[in-house]
Amino acid sequence: VTDVDAAVERLLQGNRRALGRILTQIENDTPSGRRALSQLYPRSGNAHTIGLTGSAGSGKSTLTGALAREFRRRGKTLGIVAIDPTSPFSQGALLGDRIRMHDLTSDQHVFLRSMATRGNLGGLAPSTAGVVTALDAFGKDVVLVETVGAGQDEVEVAAMADTTVVVLTPGAGDDVQAMKAGIMEIADVLVVNKCDLPNADLFARQLAAIIDAAPGERKTPIIRTASALNEGIGELCAALDEHRAYIEQSGVRESHRREQARHQVLALARQRLIDRLVVTHGKDGRIDELVERVASRALDPHSAADELISE
Amino acid sequence: VTDVDAAVERLLQGNRRALGRILTQIENDTPSGRRALSQLYPRSGNAHTIGLTGSAGSGKSTLTGALAREFRRRGKTLGIVAIDPTSPFSQGALLGDRIRMHDLTSDQHVFLRSMATRGNLGGLAPSTAGVVTALDAFGKDVVLVETVGAGQDEVEVAAMADTTVVVLTPGAGDDVQAMKAGIMEIADVLVVNKCDLPNADLFARQLAAIIDAAPGERKTPIIRTASALNEGIGELCAALDEHRAYIEQSGVRESHRREQARHQVLALARQRLIDRLVVTHGKDGRIDELVERVASRALDPHSAADELISE
Repeated sequence: VTDVDAAVERLLQGNRRALGRILTQIENDTPSGRRALSQLYPRSGNAHTIGLTGSAGSGKSTLTGALAREFRRRGKTLGIVAIDPTSPFSQGALLGDRIRMHDLTSDQHVFLRSMATRGNLGGLAPSTAGVVTALDAFGKDVVLVETVGAGQDEVEVAAMADTTVVVLTPGAGDDVQAMKAGIMEIADVLVVNKCDLPNADLFARQLAAIIDAAPGERKTPIIRTASALNEGIGELCAALDEHRAYIEQSGVRESHRREQARHQVLALARQRLIDRLVVTHGKDGRIDELVERVASRALDPHSAADELISE
Repeated sequence: VTDVDAAVERLLQGNRRALGRILTQIENDTPSGRRALSQLYPRSGNAHTIGLTGSAGSGKSTLTGALAREFRRRGKTLGIVAIDPTSPFSQGALLGDRIRMHDLTSDQHVFLRSMATRGNLGGLAPSTAGVVTALDAFGKDVVLVETVGAGQDEVEVAAMADTTVVVLTPGAGDDVQAMKAGIMEIADVLVVNKCDLPNADLFARQLAAIIDAAPGERKTPIIRTASALNEGIGELCAALDEHRAYIEQSGVRESHRREQARHQVLALARQRLIDRLVVTHGKDGRIDELVERVASRALDPHSAADELISE
């Protein structure tokens, strides 16, 4: 435990190895990880956290890379959390992608962390929140979180950030459908990537029409980029800065963070309650007994859950 | 409440309107819905439940339609649960798709239910499980569940079924990456759809290599289909029947259902525990107080969760 405290101290002094070790503890939700977080959390809250989400094939990873370079050009230090398993930032990177990312991974002002989408012991959202807290406390100006995007879990992760960017591509015609189905609501900035594609104009106009029809005082900006050609990245950076200034001045940042805090505390409490239940009734055989009755169709799952918690 | 019992009685006699009404109650997780489920659950367990998952653009919906027609040709009655918001089975269907689905939707031996991916009051997985139970108890031979597929939540839904089908397309090169990242593990049958595309051979060979390298006695079959051309659908149907026979004879079906029962009971218990916590400490202001301390960074979320449940 004193080891953890010493590692936290080194992290706060800018030691990258200490940061890496603590991130592993946080991801695995160990007692050391929790202890580190309790010390790091009060030191966090200064970074501009940005979540990027969008379907596979939207060029999100290339965009994240281009955006990171633009922020570096503007003198900002960066944390990058890559959750997408197909991202070149992640383990599954092709050799070519790894080489293209080399300028970022070898930059001492950039700290890159890949996370698995599955098997996070504490759940994806709390793990990511902890990793972001540590990078924030480490002193990074901007923390980018790149997710896979289609699932509720990933969308939840992107929505935790101060600014949520939804990346779309003209090619996939069902993107507009997907937008209607819910991703729209979480976007603070919309990006039409691969805007050099032939039907990009039509697509951007369709999006603009949806935005115009939506209620709310602030219209979500639509930024057109071609990340592979490095086009529109400056505009995107400016839109992100503008959104940050807006949420700070309007008080939206504070209310959003309060809302996220509530969500996170309740999610963690839920997990602990069930852990406690499993320990107690795992030992006394109560869970096995109820499961057996459900499996044999003698009892339905809702009634079994009621019985389990009523004791 | 006696109304519910009467509706359950009518459902069990084959009344489609009663089924429709009860499904709405189940989806909204009302007391009536839970009461209906407790009566329907002991009558369920006979249907072959099949979950279809795969990324958007894999042609999953067309495949589901083609598969449904093939099962009908073989004399089976069907329940179809469409969770994908972009599916032509769902609300967002284009007119053309609706017309193409007309033969299925007007068939009295097919019962189609669309579900929203978001906003299910009881969560996506428990809602879907309840809907499947009702269709099963209604007497359908086969219940197809079509999900969006990329998110953890949707994969969980597909994995609840007796047989889980993962649909892939040659076009998207990162599919093989995605497979490595976890979708692989849940597939009982793999489908390479749009196998008329030029690189289909290479893609199917890559998949076969991954399958051959995986541990386990049973090799996941790879079925090549072109659902739009109605090719390979008979083979897929045969592979599904073969899988059903395998799990019944080997005892895998029973152990899988027990595992799913455990998962479902614990998920429902977790939800009830947190609901109870929110009712109690929402009223007495304890949650607000802790959230305020987290939002102001005085306390980290883990410690707040500990405090909340320790009382």
